[in-house]
Amino acid sequence: MQTMAANTVSLQQVRIQDAFWSKYETLIRDTVLPYQWKALNDELPDTEPSYAIHNFQVAAGLKEGEFGGMVFQDSDLAKWLEAVAYSLATHPDAALEQLADEAIDLIVRAQQPDGYLNTYFTIKEPDKRWTNIQDCHELYCAGHMMEAAVAYYQATGKRALLDAMCKFADYIDTVFGPEAGKIQGYPGHQEIELALVKLYHVTGETRYLQLSAYFINQRGQSPSFFIEEWTQRGGVSHWSKGPTPKPDLKYNQSHLPVREQSEAVGHAVRAVYMYTAMADLARLTGDQSLLDACRRLWDDISKRQMYITGGIGSTHHGEAFSFAYDLPNDTVYAETCASVGLIFFAFRMLQMEAKREYADVIERALYNLIIGSMTLDGQRYFYVNPLEVWPEASEKNPGRRHVRPVRQKWFGCSCCPPNLARLIASLGQYIYTVDKRTLYTHLFIGSEIRATLDDVEVHLKQTSLLPWDGQVQFTLSLAAPKCFALAWRIPGWCANAQLQVNGEAYPLDGQLQNGYVIIDRVWQNGDRIELNFPMTAQLIQANPQIRADAGKVAIQRGPLVYCFEEADNGDLIAALALSRKAELQARFDASVLGGTVVIEGEGWREDVSAWHDELYRPITQQPKPVHIRAIPYHLWGNRGSGEMAVWLPVQ
Amino acid sequence: MQTMAANTVSLQQVRIQDAFWSKYETLIRDTVLPYQWKALNDELPDTEPSYAIHNFQVAAGLKEGEFGGMVFQDSDLAKWLEAVAYSLATHPDAALEQLADEAIDLIVRAQQPDGYLNTYFTIKEPDKRWTNIQDCHELYCAGHMMEAAVAYYQATGKRALLDAMCKFADYIDTVFGPEAGKIQGYPGHQEIELALVKLYHVTGETRYLQLSAYFINQRGQSPSFFIEEWTQRGGVSHWSKGPTPKPDLKYNQSHLPVREQSEAVGHAVRAVYMYTAMADLARLTGDQSLLDACRRLWDDISKRQMYITGGIGSTHHGEAFSFAYDLPNDTVYAETCASVGLIFFAFRMLQMEAKREYADVIERALYNLIIGSMTLDGQRYFYVNPLEVWPEASEKNPGRRHVRPVRQKWFGCSCCPPNLARLIASLGQYIYTVDKRTLYTHLFIGSEIRATLDDVEVHLKQTSLLPWDGQVQFTLSLAAPKCFALAWRIPGWCANAQLQVNGEAYPLDGQLQNGYVIIDRVWQNGDRIELNFPMTAQLIQANPQIRADAGKVAIQRGPLVYCFEEADNGDLIAALALSRKAELQARFDASVLGGTVVIEGEGWREDVSAWHDELYRPITQQPKPVHIRAIPYHLWGNRGSGEMAVWLPVQ
Repeated sequence: MQTMAANTVSLQQVRIQDAFWSKYETLIRDTVLPYQWKALNDELPDTEPSYAIHNFQVAAGLKEGEFGGMVFQDSDLAKWLEAVAYSLATHPDAALEQLADEAIDLIVRAQQPDGYLNTYFTIKEPDKRWTNIQDCHELYCAGHMMEAAVAYYQATGKRALLDAMCKFADYIDTVFGPEAGKIQGYPGHQEIELALVKLYHVTGETRYLQLSAYFINQRGQSPSFFIEEWTQRGGVSHWSKGPTPKPDLKYNQSHLPVREQSEAVGHAVRAVYMYTAMADLARLTGDQSLLDACRRLWDDISKRQMYITGGIGSTHHGEAFSFAYDLPNDTVYAETCASVGLIFFAFRMLQMEAKREYADVIERALYNLIIGSMTLDGQRYFYVNPLEVWPEASEKNPGRRHVRPVRQKWFGCSCCPPNLARLIASLGQYIYTVDKRTLYTHLFIGSEIRATLDDVEVHLKQTSLLPWDGQVQFTLSLAAPKCFALAWRIPGWCANAQLQVNGEAYPLDGQLQNGYVIIDRVWQNGDRIELNFPMTAQLIQANPQIRADAGKVAIQRGPLVYCFEEADNGDLIAALALSRKAELQARFDASVLGGTVVIEGEGWREDVSAWHDELYRPITQQPKPVHIRAIPYHLWGNRGSGEMAVWLPVQ
Repeated sequence: MQTMAANTVSLQQVRIQDAFWSKYETLIRDTVLPYQWKALNDELPDTEPSYAIHNFQVAAGLKEGEFGGMVFQDSDLAKWLEAVAYSLATHPDAALEQLADEAIDLIVRAQQPDGYLNTYFTIKEPDKRWTNIQDCHELYCAGHMMEAAVAYYQATGKRALLDAMCKFADYIDTVFGPEAGKIQGYPGHQEIELALVKLYHVTGETRYLQLSAYFINQRGQSPSFFIEEWTQRGGVSHWSKGPTPKPDLKYNQSHLPVREQSEAVGHAVRAVYMYTAMADLARLTGDQSLLDACRRLWDDISKRQMYITGGIGSTHHGEAFSFAYDLPNDTVYAETCASVGLIFFAFRMLQMEAKREYADVIERALYNLIIGSMTLDGQRYFYVNPLEVWPEASEKNPGRRHVRPVRQKWFGCSCCPPNLARLIASLGQYIYTVDKRTLYTHLFIGSEIRATLDDVEVHLKQTSLLPWDGQVQFTLSLAAPKCFALAWRIPGWCANAQLQVNGEAYPLDGQLQNGYVIIDRVWQNGDRIELNFPMTAQLIQANPQIRADAGKVAIQRGPLVYCFEEADNGDLIAALALSRKAELQARFDASVLGGTVVIEGEGWREDVSAWHDELYRPITQQPKPVHIRAIPYHLWGNRGSGEMAVWLPVQ
């Protein structure tokens, strides 16, 4: 297997200082984490209680009460704790750390003597552990708590949760596996596979890696574990209680052994979490067949099943992928968690192969769907991230009811908000990777990195004007001149990038390797590298196979996808159209949504005032010319409920 | 109330002889009725059994067995029998009549001594009559059997079923009503209301009219009958058995008293059957408030919630209306039965007010959705009638699974095929109406009518080239010159109609009354009236409020809506576009689908071969010019499974 097998850099190695992203980091720290802590403690007014902390208190014997919320409610606290850990890694905060320590203390108290941890089963069905692995998320919750434990240990050096989770993992290892007497099964919701890899990474315990590989390798083997389990429990489901049809194995990607899978199917979050673990295992074990499967599944998502915003999952039925080129904008799902997982998967692929396409997708999802899933004030969230909204349809057409025109305070199933928090809090991990003697820059986010290349300490400082402008500068600090490689991604959206080293043009024509410019030379302290990615507002067309976008265009400028909102263009956004030769002006407007680049130009608008009591009539008039304004997609829905569209008809 | 209150002409007064429609009449007679009889007798190979005849045999004590099929399965036989009656009225057929007599004998045997008739309750829950009126369709099945009884009596003069149904109606009248001890309720699925009006019409029994009015007037009063019934039966439903949420009263239009309703909501078939009865009652009782409600509901459907094909019902959730201008083409429902009911409603409105808009909708639904719901061979049917089909999406996107790309042999819920049969078999009823001294022609279907105007026998013969050409001629026969009025609808789709009386031009400018030309004069034997409706293929635009059609056009020529099929244009129909100034040629092609007018011209096609592994990229090329061909919508899906679209992007 010829791959780069680059390392993730630890969060402590990277410090973000960026005009655009530092705002989001701060928002997470100052607003989102405290807000979500309140949510987990059922302290948000007029909001469905979470019960997350409550459940741990009851399970720990500190409180009387019933279990509340979803069977996987524990994972919300785990993801919050993981986000806290990332934040502490870059911005120590004694008060926050104490809060986390107390939460960890509570978690550890809720752990059972044998290592088992799950408040649902401990409180509600203590003798039913591992009897409905398909539905009941025990391994999923375990995985999230392991991720939190690893992150917290890495951030603080504190082992309490890590030790507890090792104990849990050791216990799980006695329950699952190929040996007689163990359950030859695997999770109903994949997650622990990637978590066990992280646990292996910090502990060096190969049993964790082997257990992860077992779950991945066993998945989809015949006869089906889930069908046998379903039969054994009498054909009922956790969700309906009554009889349920035979499990749809595609839903949780257990329809085939993973190495035989080529199409992304089923529940999108389960899928990308699994692909992430597959990529981890391919990298760590050098398993070519696993890498091949990862590449096929990557291609199927990124080349056939991904929205322009970086969203995935075309249908709310099962929160799932549907099939190639089926990307409806109005009935879309595009769950926030799914794009978080897509970034995980893309980054694992990037660790193996420095190909631009992986980082392009990370950037696309980050700058559009991910930050768009939260209000500017950090206190409201989308679960579903549509590309077209008609608020009345969301209310009155049941097939579009899952599409909310405004972000919500919290959710009964609130997986997305803490997932978003842990991703943004760990953003520093995604900017760079380090191969033995190469430092790759994947994202253009102002930051500093300290890395070791061929035993030499390197300090690289990046300043960036993205996403508003394409100027990026790097300054290198190192003790003595040294030969090594620096590599930069040239984004897929930029056709005419320029690079200068110490003020001298460095031609890029024919120089790109998989979309990266790699400069391997003797570098000196103080070397300056300037990149320029000229940005224009471009009309983007979708592959004609995407029926939903036929005859339409979207606007993209740099990494940002734009959209048209009622707040700027009046209602009936669908009556707007763009000219194929539209001249679009981009300008920064400090008064709009906290300051953003708006795109304006001449478009067309059907004159609805010329229509009265008719539904259909012969085409007569041209639409009227009209001034149109687009805003970045990630800012939509911050000015009340209204119509929105990413794709508009083109004339 | 100033209305025309025109009479329906009886089927015996009209004989259709039409190049286009006689084919369908014959198909119903020779193929559809025998085919459906086989279906009702469970004799179709490889098809889910109907159980309809079986259930009557069991209920009649002629056979041992269980009840099979839906709780409303009886209605399939009733609708088939009604269709047979209409066929016998115009085309006597001793063998068919004997078959019907035997079926009627079976039905009568299944009737209970007190008049009750319902095979589900008789076989399965004999002591549960009238305990779940919301779900269990007892009154619905009763209504359909009454309609069959009336039609059979009118066609053959035989009273066996009519008497049985009068007995049933008498019994129902003892069960429902305002008096103490009766149920103050109304049907879960409206139907009996319009049937009781028919029963009143042939028997003169005013109790039937009063019972119909009771059901209509009681509906939606507070407290809600259905909520009380649901509480009394312990909050369960017939469908789920388990606990169900409180009934959604909009679903069956019992959310408001009918006179306060202004929006068409809920299950579309229930709605239009109810509106039909409301119009009947408004006409027969002169109830202005009921007429006002009918007009509002008509406007809401025909001006805000109707597809260009005459389909209604925008969502498969509850087979229901959604709201104004929400007319998605891909996730559409547009059930065949709903358009059948829409024609009923439109015709009742037309009986009160000779306004073109009613007949325009009847024509639109008939020529497009109705005949399009059946294969050319009469043996396969659509339940859902989409305006856009992508077979792979129907298979793989759960939100489009209800949209079938090919017509089906039969259905578990097989309401549509016999509904279609009874409508086409009674087509003669919809062509003309007679006011005291005015004979209205609403549809241009070759036929003869014998009517009495002011005590004078009039015979009018119509020949028509529709829908292929707009030439229509009328010849009048009468014993002596006489002053009366003849009226013709000038279709909404024709802007430049011409009329000649005995070869002399009759100017139409400023002469139309609500879209009708009315010539009131002394008519003579042999008078000839020629109408010409020039037809061109027109690009049709939808009201800009219909978001789903934004930036798109459809093609219509005369009453026919056209569509683009994969069989003519290759796959990826969505990659086609039309020019705003497209020159479209219409020509009759005898080789296509049994002979039809195809429409051809130059369009555009996105060059999919220029796309490979990309989902999105800057717009570059113009699409390629391409020869396109459209066929009438009603002929789609007769050449195997493939993509289809009515609306295409316009450049």
